[in-house]
Amino acid sequence: MEGVSPRPAAVGRGQKVRVAVHAATLAELVEKGYAALTVEGVAQRAGVHKTTVYRRWKDRESLVVDALSDRSATDVPIPDTGSVESDLRELARSLVRMMTGPTGRALLAAMFSGAADVPGVAEARRQIFDDRFGRAEPVVVRAVERGELPPRTDPSTLLKALAAPVYFRLLVTGEPVDEHTADHAAEIAMAAARAGVLGAP
Amino acid sequence: MEGVSPRPAAVGRGQKVRVAVHAATLAELVEKGYAALTVEGVAQRAGVHKTTVYRRWKDRESLVVDALSDRSATDVPIPDTGSVESDLRELARSLVRMMTGPTGRALLAAMFSGAADVPGVAEARRQIFDDRFGRAEPVVVRAVERGELPPRTDPSTLLKALAAPVYFRLLVTGEPVDEHTADHAAEIAMAAARAGVLGAP
Repeated sequence: MEGVSPRPAAVGRGQKVRVAVHAATLAELVEKGYAALTVEGVAQRAGVHKTTVYRRWKDRESLVVDALSDRSATDVPIPDTGSVESDLRELARSLVRMMTGPTGRALLAAMFSGAADVPGVAEARRQIFDDRFGRAEPVVVRAVERGELPPRTDPSTLLKALAAPVYFRLLVTGEPVDEHTADHAAEIAMAAARAGVLGAP
Repeated sequence: MEGVSPRPAAVGRGQKVRVAVHAATLAELVEKGYAALTVEGVAQRAGVHKTTVYRRWKDRESLVVDALSDRSATDVPIPDTGSVESDLRELARSLVRMMTGPTGRALLAAMFSGAADVPGVAEARRQIFDDRFGRAEPVVVRAVERGELPPRTDPSTLLKALAAPVYFRLLVTGEPVDEHTADHAAEIAMAAARAGVLGAP
């Protein structure tokens, strides 16, 4: 396959475009929201031609999903501390840091502020969350293998139980979201998992 | 105080206006959202003069808070079955029924769709949720008195743990919300409460 691979210079250029377009997408999301975001606006902000964007991303949805998923993956690394309790605490703390920082602001602007009726937003949100929960599943799989959690614990169900209290404060009560919120969410998820109520739905 | 009380006919008329204005408020919220809702529009829809509305509610915020709190109280009665498990299950099931029905649609339109930047909406939301959590607190107080939950269980913390998974599905993942969602939320809250992690923050 050697002959098919792009040359290093091209890889570098492709990567640079990708980074610039992602950054422009997040900035546009924060500034204008999802409904008003256009591929043209993103291209202009990134300093590239819009055909360059369309060559890599087929539409606005896939651009937003890719930018937010990519940034979430960087902002929320998957911990492997050897203990499920500290793994979940780390995971929740990273989530809190992300959601209260620039990526979180872009995510909230994109997915939750007046975006409910924008076509594609529900599907985009589903894809982003599927990606995020999928990436974190090894944390739960390893915990079950180590015998720390009941064998029937479902990774996705546990990760949703972990995230729910954080989003509840962010989106519903508006109470401050900090490290204590994260640690408390981890305690709730651990208690529920140990009690055996986080099996597959 | 007898002489000060309004005559029955006046009470009846006042109550009728209140019911009509509340219904008009919810209908306007669903149709137009919080940002576009006006006291004039509500008055017109309810078939009363806007001064009649202003006599009872000082502004748009207090009108929306009152209408949503009042309807929530009717839609989510506080159970007293004698067991905390069935009380929490009932409470969560009523919440799910409300949130997937007309009141929930009004609440979502008022509080979560593009309303994040509307002045007063965060405060209105806080008031509505304080009212709802406050009303349900006796469920937890009774459970602690009966020795079903640890003495330091905080009613508000438990009720938020109960509501969080329901709102997470409604607002974040978009997964279906039904009786199973409610029962699962009750199981998570029970497990966390029994593990002693739902004390005061």
